Amino acid sequence: MDRPLDNEDQLIERIARAVPSSRGVARSHDEVRLGIGDDAAIVAPNRTTEWVLSCDASLEGVHFLAGSYPADSVGFKALVRAASDLAAMGARPRLFLLTLALPTKRTGKWLDEFLRGMGRAARQLGMRLIGGDTTRSPTVSISITVLGEVARGLAVRRSGARPGDILYVSGRLGRAQLGLEMIRQGATNASASDRRLLQAHLYPKIRIELGEWLARRKMATAMMDISDGLSTDLARLCAASGVGARLWAERIPRVKIPIARTGLLRKRRLDPLRMALHGGEDYELLFTVPRKNVRRLRSAPGFAELTAIGEIERGKRITLVGADGRAKRLDPGGWDPFRGE
Amino acid sequence: MDRPLDNEDQLIERIARAVPSSRGVARSHDEVRLGIGDDAAIVAPNRTTEWVLSCDASLEGVHFLAGSYPADSVGFKALVRAASDLAAMGARPRLFLLTLALPTKRTGKWLDEFLRGMGRAARQLGMRLIGGDTTRSPTVSISITVLGEVARGLAVRRSGARPGDILYVSGRLGRAQLGLEMIRQGATNASASDRRLLQAHLYPKIRIELGEWLARRKMATAMMDISDGLSTDLARLCAASGVGARLWAERIPRVKIPIARTGLLRKRRLDPLRMALHGGEDYELLFTVPRKNVRRLRSAPGFAELTAIGEIERGKRITLVGADGRAKRLDPGGWDPFRGE
Repeated sequence: MDRPLDNEDQLIERIARAVPSSRGVARSHDEVRLGIGDDAAIVAPNRTTEWVLSCDASLEGVHFLAGSYPADSVGFKALVRAASDLAAMGARPRLFLLTLALPTKRTGKWLDEFLRGMGRAARQLGMRLIGGDTTRSPTVSISITVLGEVARGLAVRRSGARPGDILYVSGRLGRAQLGLEMIRQGATNASASDRRLLQAHLYPKIRIELGEWLARRKMATAMMDISDGLSTDLARLCAASGVGARLWAERIPRVKIPIARTGLLRKRRLDPLRMALHGGEDYELLFTVPRKNVRRLRSAPGFAELTAIGEIERGKRITLVGADGRAKRLDPGGWDPFRGE
Repeated sequence: MDRPLDNEDQLIERIARAVPSSRGVARSHDEVRLGIGDDAAIVAPNRTTEWVLSCDASLEGVHFLAGSYPADSVGFKALVRAASDLAAMGARPRLFLLTLALPTKRTGKWLDEFLRGMGRAARQLGMRLIGGDTTRSPTVSISITVLGEVARGLAVRRSGARPGDILYVSGRLGRAQLGLEMIRQGATNASASDRRLLQAHLYPKIRIELGEWLARRKMATAMMDISDGLSTDLARLCAASGVGARLWAERIPRVKIPIARTGLLRKRRLDPLRMALHGGEDYELLFTVPRKNVRRLRSAPGFAELTAIGEIERGKRITLVGADGRAKRLDPGGWDPFRGE
């Protein structure tokens, strides 16, 4: 549909058609008692679970450029980024609310593509839209509140890491930053090889099954998702737990740079280790496992993609041990919107 | 504090200090198991209640002008507007999440004032902040998700109005629009008489006690808050209920225009009835009461401020009966961000 909107109700109608939603009064036994279309949604939570809640903004010009990003990736990523905070607690994503502010020129085809991406993410994650707010604005502005469920007492916080715990990370780090650098250089989704490299930045995968598995088995003492970069997020986990950490540089799983792209990175003074340490938006899980649990980790979903990258220590220092065995202090160098002002 | 920020953690620190918040792990028996400072908040709902959820955006240039609105009113109103959707269900406001995007120039004194206003609203409403997301952006962009509680099955929806029900409204309508027109003409908070007139636009009162009272006693068959104007919101209530309505123009409680301001309104072709019918942001409650309940309404909180303005009818027409007894169709004329494009 490339027709502009006549009114707000049409917009809500289009959202509800494109994205898995709860509308009106639900069937009995549905935890959602009332969905889209009233002043608010009503939820009657299951008695054996806790609700996990988080919200996340995606703003044009800050988190994406509406002109150079595929619209479906903006919708896909906005929801996935928010749901990643649920994975980081070991919760199962269930419901979400969407605040969507749009300029008129984005209410036609762009909106359809955006909603298609968000609908795809919602189906992959098993989430339903239960409410929101829509308005017009000069730029696209999205805020998503996600609700997940976790069995009582089993959510994994940032604050439980203890000296001696082994520090793990899922996947390879720096992949999203490579994609971002390529888009800055004008790469598009056009060629198959570019598409593969852009994937991590435009359509990130998150680790719901892994997070749930770790929580349900009480395998991890602390966990978070890496959204602002390993160096920044590890500092947060350590601060919350009152501990330090020692990272082994050689062990940190990093992006493989295609030959054709090495020039681009050299120009920006980037290398795979630096991108793995400070690049943001990988949405991989960072978690700590007591030594006694390490063997049982082998049956984790996606175990082959897990890497032990260091260990938790007493004190507050975070150090990086190089290939030469020398340790130096690792300062947070990831994304902070307000740094150094 | 008029110092810019060094990092995002400082911003979160300032928010948590200024606004009633749940931080870290809660005491036992607190429904909030984990508050600000982790990937997500954890809530263990009470077993006899349902949760009511809604979200609301407040954007610079759309909902307010950061230059001409007092910063504390932006913070106050952002939360109150969102909580009004809870009042409209008969729910008690409890918790909220805040997405806050700010330009650097708003991170000093403006932010302090903004948070002071939001803190005041939170204390008045008995709400606590449990999480959120902060980032930088060229203009101020706020999205708030509110959670309220209501006894199982007692939330009042839009869809229950039946022919013969009496239609009530709280307060006087059009007050917020008068304030908006005055601000457009350059009025400030400076003089005491202006301040009183601006109050409804800058620091709206919402009807939590009334909403709860109506819900708990099953007095109302349908209810919503008037945020986009009576004509627009009544059309939504009627559509959701599958009914029509007849309004008595003479009975609609409207704003009193000070002599000094009549010229301003004439220039804009506004009059009190038009403002009462189509003016937005009054956040008064619109609700329907079966005739058998009308007498019991006398013990409602703020009963003196309630007015019967019409009745629900069969069919889908909404008509306005003038002083001369003639009925004409009332079309939605309130605020719609996407109308007529």
